[in-house]
Amino acid sequence: MIRTHDAGSLRATHAGSTVKLAGWVARRRDHGGVIFVDLRDASGVVQVVFREDMESAHALRNEFCVLVTGEVTRRPEGNDNTELPTGEIEVTATELVVLSEAAPLPLPVDDQVVAGDDIRLRYRYLDLRRSGPANAMRLRSKANQLARSVLHERDFLEIETPTLTRSTPEGARDFLVPVRLQPGSWYALPQSPQLFKQLLMVGGMERYYQIARCYRDEDFRADRQPEFTQLDIEMSFVTEDDVIDLGEAIVRKLWSELAGHQISSPIPRITWHDAMSRYGSDKPDLRYGVELTELTDYLRGTEFRVFAGAIDAGGYVGAVVMPGGAGQTRKELDGWQDWAKARGARGLAYVVLDAETGEARGPVAKNLSEAHLGGLADAVGAKPGDAVFFAASANQREAQELLGAARIEIAKRSGLIDESAWAFCWVVDAPMFERTDEGGWTAVHHPFTSPNADWEGRFEEAPDRALAYAYDIVCNGNEIGGGSIRIHRGDVQSRVFDLLGISPEEATDKFGFLLEAFKFGPPPHGGIAFGWDRVCMLLAGAESIREVIAFPKTRGGYDPLTGAPTPITGQQRTEAGIDAKPKPPTPATAGTAGVAAPVEPV
Amino acid sequence: MIRTHDAGSLRATHAGSTVKLAGWVARRRDHGGVIFVDLRDASGVVQVVFREDMESAHALRNEFCVLVTGEVTRRPEGNDNTELPTGEIEVTATELVVLSEAAPLPLPVDDQVVAGDDIRLRYRYLDLRRSGPANAMRLRSKANQLARSVLHERDFLEIETPTLTRSTPEGARDFLVPVRLQPGSWYALPQSPQLFKQLLMVGGMERYYQIARCYRDEDFRADRQPEFTQLDIEMSFVTEDDVIDLGEAIVRKLWSELAGHQISSPIPRITWHDAMSRYGSDKPDLRYGVELTELTDYLRGTEFRVFAGAIDAGGYVGAVVMPGGAGQTRKELDGWQDWAKARGARGLAYVVLDAETGEARGPVAKNLSEAHLGGLADAVGAKPGDAVFFAASANQREAQELLGAARIEIAKRSGLIDESAWAFCWVVDAPMFERTDEGGWTAVHHPFTSPNADWEGRFEEAPDRALAYAYDIVCNGNEIGGGSIRIHRGDVQSRVFDLLGISPEEATDKFGFLLEAFKFGPPPHGGIAFGWDRVCMLLAGAESIREVIAFPKTRGGYDPLTGAPTPITGQQRTEAGIDAKPKPPTPATAGTAGVAAPVEPV
Repeated sequence: MIRTHDAGSLRATHAGSTVKLAGWVARRRDHGGVIFVDLRDASGVVQVVFREDMESAHALRNEFCVLVTGEVTRRPEGNDNTELPTGEIEVTATELVVLSEAAPLPLPVDDQVVAGDDIRLRYRYLDLRRSGPANAMRLRSKANQLARSVLHERDFLEIETPTLTRSTPEGARDFLVPVRLQPGSWYALPQSPQLFKQLLMVGGMERYYQIARCYRDEDFRADRQPEFTQLDIEMSFVTEDDVIDLGEAIVRKLWSELAGHQISSPIPRITWHDAMSRYGSDKPDLRYGVELTELTDYLRGTEFRVFAGAIDAGGYVGAVVMPGGAGQTRKELDGWQDWAKARGARGLAYVVLDAETGEARGPVAKNLSEAHLGGLADAVGAKPGDAVFFAASANQREAQELLGAARIEIAKRSGLIDESAWAFCWVVDAPMFERTDEGGWTAVHHPFTSPNADWEGRFEEAPDRALAYAYDIVCNGNEIGGGSIRIHRGDVQSRVFDLLGISPEEATDKFGFLLEAFKFGPPPHGGIAFGWDRVCMLLAGAESIREVIAFPKTRGGYDPLTGAPTPITGQQRTEAGIDAKPKPPTPATAGTAGVAAPVEPV
Repeated sequence: MIRTHDAGSLRATHAGSTVKLAGWVARRRDHGGVIFVDLRDASGVVQVVFREDMESAHALRNEFCVLVTGEVTRRPEGNDNTELPTGEIEVTATELVVLSEAAPLPLPVDDQVVAGDDIRLRYRYLDLRRSGPANAMRLRSKANQLARSVLHERDFLEIETPTLTRSTPEGARDFLVPVRLQPGSWYALPQSPQLFKQLLMVGGMERYYQIARCYRDEDFRADRQPEFTQLDIEMSFVTEDDVIDLGEAIVRKLWSELAGHQISSPIPRITWHDAMSRYGSDKPDLRYGVELTELTDYLRGTEFRVFAGAIDAGGYVGAVVMPGGAGQTRKELDGWQDWAKARGARGLAYVVLDAETGEARGPVAKNLSEAHLGGLADAVGAKPGDAVFFAASANQREAQELLGAARIEIAKRSGLIDESAWAFCWVVDAPMFERTDEGGWTAVHHPFTSPNADWEGRFEEAPDRALAYAYDIVCNGNEIGGGSIRIHRGDVQSRVFDLLGISPEEATDKFGFLLEAFKFGPPPHGGIAFGWDRVCMLLAGAESIREVIAFPKTRGGYDPLTGAPTPITGQQRTEAGIDAKPKPPTPATAGTAGVAAPVEPV
């Protein structure tokens, strides 16, 4: 090392030593002939004093990279900076080498300055010199290390799976990659290592993990990246409880070490149906109450056609209470209608309960009978002064989700969220299937998700009610991980495919190599994947996953730093074989689904 | 867990316990009505005994996945199997559940059977149940963990860099990726994180590492994969010695823990020029001697035109001795000519020294003077009975490399290689530049590699002799890692570009965002990358990197398991925007090389 000490490590005990420091000029102050420089390196900041004889220091500007030799001295009486770990001392420079200069900065390296995302990402290397972004990188590195320690203690193997893999026509969100050596043939970048980790279980690896890069070529919501990271885990011979226990051990370790928070044990579990009924969400934020109440039975017989229509259609009517919501202005109450419309709903029916009398008022009140109005407060648990928001739909989930979103909005507007709180839960017993628009069934997770013991023998009887061994872990309303126990029995798998309307030919085409593998003694297995960017974001207290990614892309997948993606030249197209016609497959490479000539077992 | 114990963990102390085991039928033997099954799980193997009453055991076949309940019992006197850790006991089954059946096996799960690579990879999940492949996966996982422990002890940060990045027309071996959301625009998969790790150093991260996936779309030599893994490292404020020390700490830890070998400290260093002179290779195998001898001066004035031609052209003549090589048959000696021709040489001149008299004989002997012949044995260090092989060329490196290859071949044919030995060295002081075919200069490493202190001020004077701070680490003749100190000074970088004939415009086009970053106080920095597949291969004692990759591809990038790569459909082409014309770039996205309007430093 060209330096002898880290700048941030110097203390009063170093006084009298000669040190060599290397780092950046964080701040420069001229006091007459004396120049004070805050010298920053990865370890922190120390004050360096250049006396009148150090002429060369006059050339220093912010973010010059310098090598300073000097003597550590106690600061003069009364000049200690108690906010700085090095605040008791300063370094009196005797030698200065400018290692490199800095042009005027497009982005000030200053924790106070809020720069736009585009400029921050374009000059990410300057942004990373700020303590916030730098600390986010350190936290993420530490999070990886902690998660791995939990897994290695439990005999997990870290195994890398391929990222240049098979494209399937159904993988409409796969990135594709042309292959120079086989012109006209393409790889796909995987959306997850799912198939490979299941193959590893068939291969007897028993306990696999990987911090895996995954890819998805789709519209980027605010907080999506075309490449993202999963902590991906799979285990053999386990039950749902085993996977959940492991998941808890990981998050407990992370939050304890990185957020100073002891997660109480066990993390509460809530069924998917309860989560929808009580919170209108499959990832409920449990930092606050404000639960939903179903009113379908209570309001049966109402003449209010919005509610009656939903009830008659076999649907759902429910409500959520905004404590103190009766005090909102007319404009605020109208604002809720706009809010609901922005979510695609027709509006948000409500009544307000007079703060004095408890009397129900508002547009919906006129439409409800005396009896329904009279018992409403009790039915929904509202008090005088509260507002009650309703949703009704022939589609129960649609109505619940609207109320769930209203619940979150209520918590925000009413300041019910304790920003320092951490609330975890497992959402378990997720449904296996949901209706397609065409009236068939589709798998809620993936078609290898196992029905639970109750439903394994009879999921065909009521596919809409069949439950899976599928579980998500939720933190403060964010899904941070999820997984399932997989089907390992061929007969069960066939029945699931039948229900989904997937023919054996189609199954072979889509999942051929996995189904082939399952012919050879697959073990019962299951796993989980954590959305690692989101986990790190929460631990860092950041607003976006971009804050915990070294070189993130903006929405649309654009990288302001490198300018990627870019057009390519005709020569590149030709060389990469992009426009080549594929050769017809030879029998040897025609696919993997056929059964090979078996070798007799020995 | 559905089992109570790992099969391989059972010992005599468990006798009397009832256990539940889950795993695979590794072997079944019928002894009258009693059936013996070797039950295998990830922990090992145990013998399970099914007595006559366990009818269901008759259905068991190899690789069925089963759950067995039974009692651990001491084996009958004299039946212990001392080769098995569980060999003192057996498990007498009381209950059997077949978790899944296995079809007849295309690949026997048997450590003794050697199957072809294609069948092994197509059924990799069966291959991985064999102890060799399974242990290779375990070793690699452990290697990752050990390397990380060394790095974390030294305050390195693990940072993920992008794999969807900018394509440059020069990156002729980049895989390209079309971007659905920006039709006509493409990402490239990086050949290494080189540019990003240097940006992290500009960003003040100071110590970075990553076990990084890298991509190269090129002809696959026997032991290349289209995706491969590097242990990638970069450090700021370091000298070459610091990086070398760190590299040694990593390999020392790995070999000590995984190969039971204590690497002597320090690992010897040899200059690139010495390595070429003495071993004819920049990655010399030091497990044996057999050094080259230069004879250019010794043979000056010879009338043998092959040697004279090389000497007159300012080239090189040298020799390597094959101990006992005079005992080779005529056919064997002729075989060397074929060997040389297969390498593209015209042949391999030699003399043999009579085992009795030491007299030099053979085709070349006739062409050499008495004096040259008489002193030859002393000049090359040969004894009676040895053979001396010569190479001569106007191009010194060409001749040295031929002798270097002969040296390796000699060691193989003469059994000089101690297969249990480990010989490490650093090859340092590599040349900066080499001539292009057009007579210009090209960078031997990359154009950011720093000249060493001797040459920094004057590499233009003799580019062919200028040396870099570039170093490779070599193990048993395999380059397992390499790196360099990078240029951080703009003036030096400009002079290197000038010498390479790279105009400022071209530099901007190729490396714009890195050069832009270097305007803002870049620190001195350097790094190293280990070829992680090769490191793990050597540690595992494997012959190919495929043995330490979970799902490797065959030559040509084909995956026999999934069938990747495949043709894609017209719809996929359209959706992925493969044939879209890119929109002309808008000023905001036109590139990153321009200087942004600077913000005044605060």
